[in-house]
Amino acid sequence: MGRWEPNARERLATAALELYSERGYEQTTVAEIAKRAGLTERTYFRHYADKREVLFDGTGGLQDLFVNAVAGAPASAAPIDAVAAGLDAVATVFVDRGEHSRKRQAVIVANAELQERELIKLASLSAALADALRRRGVREPAASLTAEAGIAVFKIGFERWVAATGEGTLAEAMRESLEQLKALTAGG
Amino acid sequence: MGRWEPNARERLATAALELYSERGYEQTTVAEIAKRAGLTERTYFRHYADKREVLFDGTGGLQDLFVNAVAGAPASAAPIDAVAAGLDAVATVFVDRGEHSRKRQAVIVANAELQERELIKLASLSAALADALRRRGVREPAASLTAEAGIAVFKIGFERWVAATGEGTLAEAMRESLEQLKALTAGG
Repeated sequence: MGRWEPNARERLATAALELYSERGYEQTTVAEIAKRAGLTERTYFRHYADKREVLFDGTGGLQDLFVNAVAGAPASAAPIDAVAAGLDAVATVFVDRGEHSRKRQAVIVANAELQERELIKLASLSAALADALRRRGVREPAASLTAEAGIAVFKIGFERWVAATGEGTLAEAMRESLEQLKALTAGG
Repeated sequence: MGRWEPNARERLATAALELYSERGYEQTTVAEIAKRAGLTERTYFRHYADKREVLFDGTGGLQDLFVNAVAGAPASAAPIDAVAAGLDAVATVFVDRGEHSRKRQAVIVANAELQERELIKLASLSAALADALRRRGVREPAASLTAEAGIAVFKIGFERWVAATGEGTLAEAMRESLEQLKALTAGG
């Protein structure tokens, strides 16, 4: 990444989301994304493997944040509470990102390929969470079940936050979803 | 499907699973599957859209079974108990299918494309379950959260049943997973 291309990665991601929102994902080419960002196609492919990946730039960092928060929860914390700490940590990333998240979600929901990629990212996040829980001494299947429950809360909480523009934070939406899941599995 | 091709669908599915297990998914062609089943490639594509779909033949029926059991649960049943009834119904399909399920799971785990397709099928099952719960009068986000919890139990219960050959039924594995999820979300 040379000096002559400052923030190429971010510029490409911003340009891609703009174009996908304006014209649709299928109708947009990598050449157009690169042009809008003032860069070349070659630079695009130095940063992203394909047209989809540019929308998932943040997921690696998100996963690290989630996993580190789970690992860093007090040793006495129950597995579900360690996951709750992870959800809180993840939510901080989305403060002031409501508009961006809404746009991105609309693009993903409109395209089956993108939904597939999202499912894969969530499955990978779930596996990483289960791994983090096992390293805390949680056994199987408790680790995998808690991780899957955490992903369910993340997914539903996120969807609700995106749908309810400007009403509360993602952290609140996820905490509410977790409380509801607890009530529901209590048989309530 | 003419009389001259009795059970073509099942024969193709059996041949595909055999070949995928013996040679690997990537190393097997549709022509080879058709040949092993004593049928033509053309017949294959009349039944299955691609090389992946043949492994997911039963998922539509499974989804109907799951959804119908949720719909048919007593009106007084809590959402999670309606889902538990669905899990019980689904488990009946797998009685005496342990060997087949193990083979199929091994093929899927070994290939990223197949894992993707599996994730999509599970997401579709989750959406259908949430829909069935809403038709029972369950509101959002409770319907989606309960559906996701049900899928988590199905997934983990299934994996454990497949891993623990010959020890108990799928119904037992899923009931155990559900009990564990309840204990875990109770903060235990």
